Amino acid sequence: MNVQGKHYRTIWLHPSDPTIVQIIDQRHLPHQFIIEDLSTVEAVARAIKDMHVRGAGLIGATAGFGMYVAALNASRSSMAAFMADLRRDGDILCATRPTAVNLEWAVKRQLEAIEQAGPDIEAMIDAALQTAQAIADEDAEYCRRLGEHGKELIKEISAKKGGEPVNVLTHCNAGWLAFVDYGSATAPVYAAHDEGVATHVWVDETRPRNQGARLTAWELVEHGVPHTVVADNVGGHLMQHGLVDLVIVGTDRTLYTGDVANKIGTYLKALAAHDNGVPFYVALPSSSFDWEKRDGLKEIPIEQRGSTEVKYIQGLHNDEIVQVLLTPEASPAANYAFDVTPARLVTGLITERGICPASEEGILNLFPEKRSNQ
Amino acid sequence: MNVQGKHYRTIWLHPSDPTIVQIIDQRHLPHQFIIEDLSTVEAVARAIKDMHVRGAGLIGATAGFGMYVAALNASRSSMAAFMADLRRDGDILCATRPTAVNLEWAVKRQLEAIEQAGPDIEAMIDAALQTAQAIADEDAEYCRRLGEHGKELIKEISAKKGGEPVNVLTHCNAGWLAFVDYGSATAPVYAAHDEGVATHVWVDETRPRNQGARLTAWELVEHGVPHTVVADNVGGHLMQHGLVDLVIVGTDRTLYTGDVANKIGTYLKALAAHDNGVPFYVALPSSSFDWEKRDGLKEIPIEQRGSTEVKYIQGLHNDEIVQVLLTPEASPAANYAFDVTPARLVTGLITERGICPASEEGILNLFPEKRSNQ
Repeated sequence: MNVQGKHYRTIWLHPSDPTIVQIIDQRHLPHQFIIEDLSTVEAVARAIKDMHVRGAGLIGATAGFGMYVAALNASRSSMAAFMADLRRDGDILCATRPTAVNLEWAVKRQLEAIEQAGPDIEAMIDAALQTAQAIADEDAEYCRRLGEHGKELIKEISAKKGGEPVNVLTHCNAGWLAFVDYGSATAPVYAAHDEGVATHVWVDETRPRNQGARLTAWELVEHGVPHTVVADNVGGHLMQHGLVDLVIVGTDRTLYTGDVANKIGTYLKALAAHDNGVPFYVALPSSSFDWEKRDGLKEIPIEQRGSTEVKYIQGLHNDEIVQVLLTPEASPAANYAFDVTPARLVTGLITERGICPASEEGILNLFPEKRSNQ
Repeated sequence: MNVQGKHYRTIWLHPSDPTIVQIIDQRHLPHQFIIEDLSTVEAVARAIKDMHVRGAGLIGATAGFGMYVAALNASRSSMAAFMADLRRDGDILCATRPTAVNLEWAVKRQLEAIEQAGPDIEAMIDAALQTAQAIADEDAEYCRRLGEHGKELIKEISAKKGGEPVNVLTHCNAGWLAFVDYGSATAPVYAAHDEGVATHVWVDETRPRNQGARLTAWELVEHGVPHTVVADNVGGHLMQHGLVDLVIVGTDRTLYTGDVANKIGTYLKALAAHDNGVPFYVALPSSSFDWEKRDGLKEIPIEQRGSTEVKYIQGLHNDEIVQVLLTPEASPAANYAFDVTPARLVTGLITERGICPASEEGILNLFPEKRSNQ
């Protein structure tokens, strides 16, 4: 999407030096737009682990490019030595965020593609580059497609409102910064906006890490989409007063039964949408489906993160990014990172294949090849 | 309640100089405990306007003491001149926060009491002091009584849990800092805790002004009540997993039909409580009832405050209280301060007269003298 009028993805090859991978160091957003060069697997691993990049799609793509960088630096003494180095580097990448499914998947895909291209080392390096690009392109393409499907929902509402701006509420950042391009929850918004459909986004700030206020708001500023940041407490009031036409959120994992795990607080917005008859959609590339678990509340483990993320917050003070203490030093804080929204509260799922009800039948009708899994 | 082991109210007469009123300057909490001396009506007005003190009960009590300070400084040339000065000072106080009902009520009560004690100026000043004390004492006493009634709810749950800690979730600060002592939502907790009933409080941080993280958490630390601060997004997840036994919140205005206006985000917690079968109570002294309006969503005006309260946040950095920017500078933000929880989501109201259902019938049974109002 656009940054200062120029098109960017979240990860790309250096335009004049193809041995360098470039990313946006998202830790400094929205205050500073810093591009970081990565040319060693250690640098890539640090970028994932310390959250210079985050989001399921982007973590996968970064791991893909990480394996390309690994291939550039691996031993060329023999194919066996080359592959041994790559396997070691793959383990380094996989250890950065052990719960991120896309990470392991990307490393595995790379190892298979690279091995298959052997024994010529140059061909293997070339395969690593092609595969890294393919992983990134597929991620972007899936998000683009789901955006096209989701756009129709916005256009329908726009038509009913006679072209008045369609108010979309979103929670957290399921934007292009979490993927390679377009995003999941934001993809329908960008598609509608780019087609000239008047759209306005209510951006939940999304405490404690403020991915909404920091990242989604920044994306929308840079792409020129009208939006308003609100505290996470506000969405219910907005819906009670007819100020939200549609909720679209992303997901970290959605079960084939329709239960949705997403950033903490999503469940509260789903309850408010249900209570006020506001459609509540979840946008996801199919890689975010879990085809095995049945019951979201019972079976999805919820990560608990450190209390400092609640007690302290990061912001800009005198042109410097600083952390400030919000609570009494002596107060404990709990930091549940995700919650589960039961399928009964979800109007539908927006995927790269189209929109379906958040039910086992609805999902399996769209992904019939998964029927055998159940 | 206790601060560093010593009992405090939120407002009191200087122990050795009865011409000075003392308050806790709440702007510096939880990081600094600063007591401020007030000896002119201008200083009292500034303390209310700039929110050194806040909360319905405390604003009323501060206005009461403000009129006492005004009486000390008024012209003694004649009763007429004295009363003219007092009326002017009453107007100054009432203009500080025009929507605060308790403010006007306290000023009016003082003017009547002072005038009645005339024409002797010393007797009038004495009446101002007695009335200021009476307003503060009544506020504390009403909160104490509702705490006794609410305590029974906690004790019932404690008995069912075999003495395991009772988990109470609260939103915003309806604590003793918002009143003269005890608080409304916190009064049952303090009463139970002081009686030795194991109680633990989930403290919603309450964005954007963080009254939970700053004030409620500080109160609980100082009084020694076990608690955990959580982001406003977390309550739904806690309730889904049986980690909340009871929700108690305060209110800025509750209609005689049971609709509750309270800090933005209260409605979302009420929805989650309803969805999970968790009792949801609102604690209020009867001064917070509105005996005229019928429909909360349609009739209660919702204050919109400045966007800087959302875009910036205050915290401690290098032992200094600073404001930091959270969002892109270019992002607009909306700041709805309150929302309305419909009576259907409220299990009951805890008042100084006892507990009643959040319905017209339930409320009027407890306050039969108000039947003629309807």
